Amino acid sequence: MSTAWTSRYAQRTKGIKSSAIRELLKVTQRPEIISFAGGLPAPDVFPTTRFQEACRTVLEKNASQALQYGASEGYEPLREMVARHIARYGIKANAENVLITSGSQQALDLIGKLLINAGDRVLVEAPTYLGALQAFNVYGAEYLSVLSDDDGLRTDLLEEPLRSGPKFMYVLPNFQNPGGTTLSEGRREQLVLLADRYGIPIVEDDPYGQLRYEDEHLTPLVVLDRVNLRRDDGYSIGNVIYLSTFSKTLAPGLRLGWIVAPADVISKIVQLKQGADLHTSTFTQMVAYEVAKDGFLDEHVKLIRKVYCERRDVMLASLKEFFPSEVTWTHPKGGLFLWVSLPKGMDCQKLFQAALKENVAFVPGDSFYARNGYTEEGNRHFRLNFSYGQPEQIREGIRRLSIAVKEQMGSPRVEELLKPVQR
Amino acid sequence: MSTAWTSRYAQRTKGIKSSAIRELLKVTQRPEIISFAGGLPAPDVFPTTRFQEACRTVLEKNASQALQYGASEGYEPLREMVARHIARYGIKANAENVLITSGSQQALDLIGKLLINAGDRVLVEAPTYLGALQAFNVYGAEYLSVLSDDDGLRTDLLEEPLRSGPKFMYVLPNFQNPGGTTLSEGRREQLVLLADRYGIPIVEDDPYGQLRYEDEHLTPLVVLDRVNLRRDDGYSIGNVIYLSTFSKTLAPGLRLGWIVAPADVISKIVQLKQGADLHTSTFTQMVAYEVAKDGFLDEHVKLIRKVYCERRDVMLASLKEFFPSEVTWTHPKGGLFLWVSLPKGMDCQKLFQAALKENVAFVPGDSFYARNGYTEEGNRHFRLNFSYGQPEQIREGIRRLSIAVKEQMGSPRVEELLKPVQR
Repeated sequence: MSTAWTSRYAQRTKGIKSSAIRELLKVTQRPEIISFAGGLPAPDVFPTTRFQEACRTVLEKNASQALQYGASEGYEPLREMVARHIARYGIKANAENVLITSGSQQALDLIGKLLINAGDRVLVEAPTYLGALQAFNVYGAEYLSVLSDDDGLRTDLLEEPLRSGPKFMYVLPNFQNPGGTTLSEGRREQLVLLADRYGIPIVEDDPYGQLRYEDEHLTPLVVLDRVNLRRDDGYSIGNVIYLSTFSKTLAPGLRLGWIVAPADVISKIVQLKQGADLHTSTFTQMVAYEVAKDGFLDEHVKLIRKVYCERRDVMLASLKEFFPSEVTWTHPKGGLFLWVSLPKGMDCQKLFQAALKENVAFVPGDSFYARNGYTEEGNRHFRLNFSYGQPEQIREGIRRLSIAVKEQMGSPRVEELLKPVQR
Repeated sequence: MSTAWTSRYAQRTKGIKSSAIRELLKVTQRPEIISFAGGLPAPDVFPTTRFQEACRTVLEKNASQALQYGASEGYEPLREMVARHIARYGIKANAENVLITSGSQQALDLIGKLLINAGDRVLVEAPTYLGALQAFNVYGAEYLSVLSDDDGLRTDLLEEPLRSGPKFMYVLPNFQNPGGTTLSEGRREQLVLLADRYGIPIVEDDPYGQLRYEDEHLTPLVVLDRVNLRRDDGYSIGNVIYLSTFSKTLAPGLRLGWIVAPADVISKIVQLKQGADLHTSTFTQMVAYEVAKDGFLDEHVKLIRKVYCERRDVMLASLKEFFPSEVTWTHPKGGLFLWVSLPKGMDCQKLFQAALKENVAFVPGDSFYARNGYTEEGNRHFRLNFSYGQPEQIREGIRRLSIAVKEQMGSPRVEELLKPVQR
C-alpha cells in the first residue's frame, strides 16, 4: 500500500507497538464482558452538574480567553492552584515550577524528549506503568529493572543498577500501577539518599496519591529530597521531578496533568511543549479551575475515596471468597489497581483466554515489564482494576474469574480445550 | 541551579529555543501596543452562544463518555465529520484515514516523530511556518529551503533539492504562513508530479484553506496526487499527508486539529499518539462536534470570511495610504497574514525596535527561515497579522508602523537614536 511512507519511518518508530492494554480494551468492550482490564475512573462519580456550571461561567465571563490561544506554561490561575494544592504535602512550589500538560501521559513524553538519548538507561520498577515505557521507548530508552514487593521498589537492590549510571529513575511511590503497592517510609528515605549519592535524578509519578483509603499520606520523594538533603540551598525543588494529574480526581476526558520541577527545567520543557502542541486547551484548563476551586475538589475527592474504597473491599472480599489459596494478591491502600500472583507454572496468557470464555477480562502482567527486565515474571501475574465496575459486578466478575483460574490450575489439558476461543 | 538536570538534557534539546513569536508576544501584550505579531483569530467571531449550547448538550446527554478516557484515534463522529467535510474539496477519506490531534501543532510533532531521523533533510518553503521548524528541529531535521514568490513555492527550483533526497516536503499551499501567498494551479500540478517522479512524499498543511476571500478554491495536493497520478490503484490517499485544524474556523483554545493519511500511516501515528498524550480531550472533541454539526460550521465560516476580508482590505488600503513606495507587500487571497518586503539594506530587527517605540509590533522575518536557508532574506521581511485587530486599530497601527519605516529609511544614524529602547 503506502510503501512510500513505510520505507520512510524513522528509526525510533521501529518496534513501537500499540499499547497492549488499549488493544485489549477493544476485545473487552463487548457488553457481556465484565472488564477489570481498563484503568477507568467510575463515570458515576464525575461531577457533571459542577462541570455544567463551570462551562456556563467560563463561557459567560471569559469566552474570548477560553477559546483563544494561551500560554504554553498553562493557565496561570490553574498553575497557582496546583502549587497551593501540593503545598499540603510539603511540596514547596510556585506557579513557575508548574507546567500544565495534556494529561500526565504528555508529561512522560516531554520528559523522555528532554532527557533520553537513544541507548540511555532508565531505572524502572518491575513491574511499572506501561504508558511510561511506551513514552520512553520512542526515544530509544533501555531499562534497568528493579524488583518491587509489597513495600514497593526494593531499595536493597538499587546500588548495583545505580552504579551503572541510569539517566534517571522512574518511580510510582503511591498505590503503584500495576502493583497497587506503596513505597514504605524507610525505603523512600533510602531511595532519595541513594539518588543523591549516585547523582541520579528521580521522576516521581503520583497520579493516585490523593486516593488513599487507609492510613496516613506518606511524604513525597520530592519533599524528602529537599528536607533530608538540601535543607539550605534555597531551592525548593532539586533532584526530583514530580508528576500528577486531574484524570483520577476530576475527569480523564479533560486531559489535564502537570509537571512540578525546578524553574529552569520547567522553562526547557515549556519549549518542548511549544513544539509538541503549543499549549493545552485553554478551555479545559479554565473549566477545570472553575470546577476545582473553592474547596470543591477536596470534597469531591472524599466522595471518590468512599466509592473506590468500597469497591476495593468488595474485590478483596470476593478474591478471598472465590479464589484458591495458592493464588495471592496485593492489598492496595489506595489507587485503582491490585496485582494478582499465580502459582509457578501457570500461564497468564492462557488464563486470559479462559477468562474471556467466562466473560471476564484483566490485563496480563507481561505488559508491565520493560524489555529484558524480569519478563518471565509477567506470565504469572495480572492486574485487576476495581474503580470502574459496580460492587455487584466486581463480585460476579471475580466469581467468573475464579472459575477460569481453577480450571487452569486443575486441568493440564486445558490448552486443548481452549483452542476454539484462541482468536 | 539544578545542574543535575541540565547536564542530562538529551542531545535533541540542545539549541532548542523558545519560539521567537511566543517570546515577542510577551513584549507586545502591553495594552498600549497595537500588535500585528500574533496569529490569533478574532475573539469577536467566536460562536460563544453555540459553544454554551454544545457544552450543555454534551454534559446532559453524554457526560460519562465526554469526561472519560477515549480512543487515541479521536471521537468517531468527529472523524466521520472531518471525512465528510473534506470530501467537498475532492479528498476521498473515511474515518480510518482521519486522526484527531491536539491542534495541528501536534500533527507536525507526530509527523516529525514518525519520519525524521537526526540528520534527515526536510524540504521547506523559504519562508515557512516556524512552528513546523520548531516541531521538526527536535528530531534533528536538516533543511532544504526553496524560495517562494507571489505564486507560492518556486517549483522551477525544486529538482536539484529533490535529487539530494529529502525525507519529505512540507508545504502550505493556501494563504501561506507567513507569506500570505497561494500556490498556483500550475505549480500544484508540477509539485505533485515532481514528488512522484523523485519518490518524495508531501506533507500538505492547510490550516487556512477555508478562509478564502476571493477567487475559487484550488485543488489540494492530496487530490491532485490521486487524480493525476494514481487513478486506478484503488487507494484514495497516496503520497500526501494532509493536515488541517478547527483553530481558525471554530476556536484555537480547543486544540483540535487532524491528520488525513493512508490508513496504515494513520495506524502508525495512532501508536505514537498513545505515547504522546493517550488521546485528545474527549470533551473538547464532543463539544466541537456539537458546535460544528447541522451545517453550523459552514455558516460560521462565512461570517469569519466576511470579517477577515474586511480587515485584510483595511490593512491593504492603509499600507497603500501610509507606506513609502519602496516597500512592497503580498496580496493574500485568504488566511490571516501578509508579508512585507523592505528595500535592500534595511534592517528588520532595527525596524522592530523602532516600531515598538511607536507602540506597534510585528514579527521580524528571520524566524520563518530554516537554519542555513536564505536567512539573510529574513532581515528585509516581516509578517503582519490582519485577523485580530479591529479595522480602526489596523489603520492606526499601520500609520504608526509607517512612521517607524520612514524613520528607518531616512535615518542612517538610527542605530544611535534607538539605543535606549534596545532592551
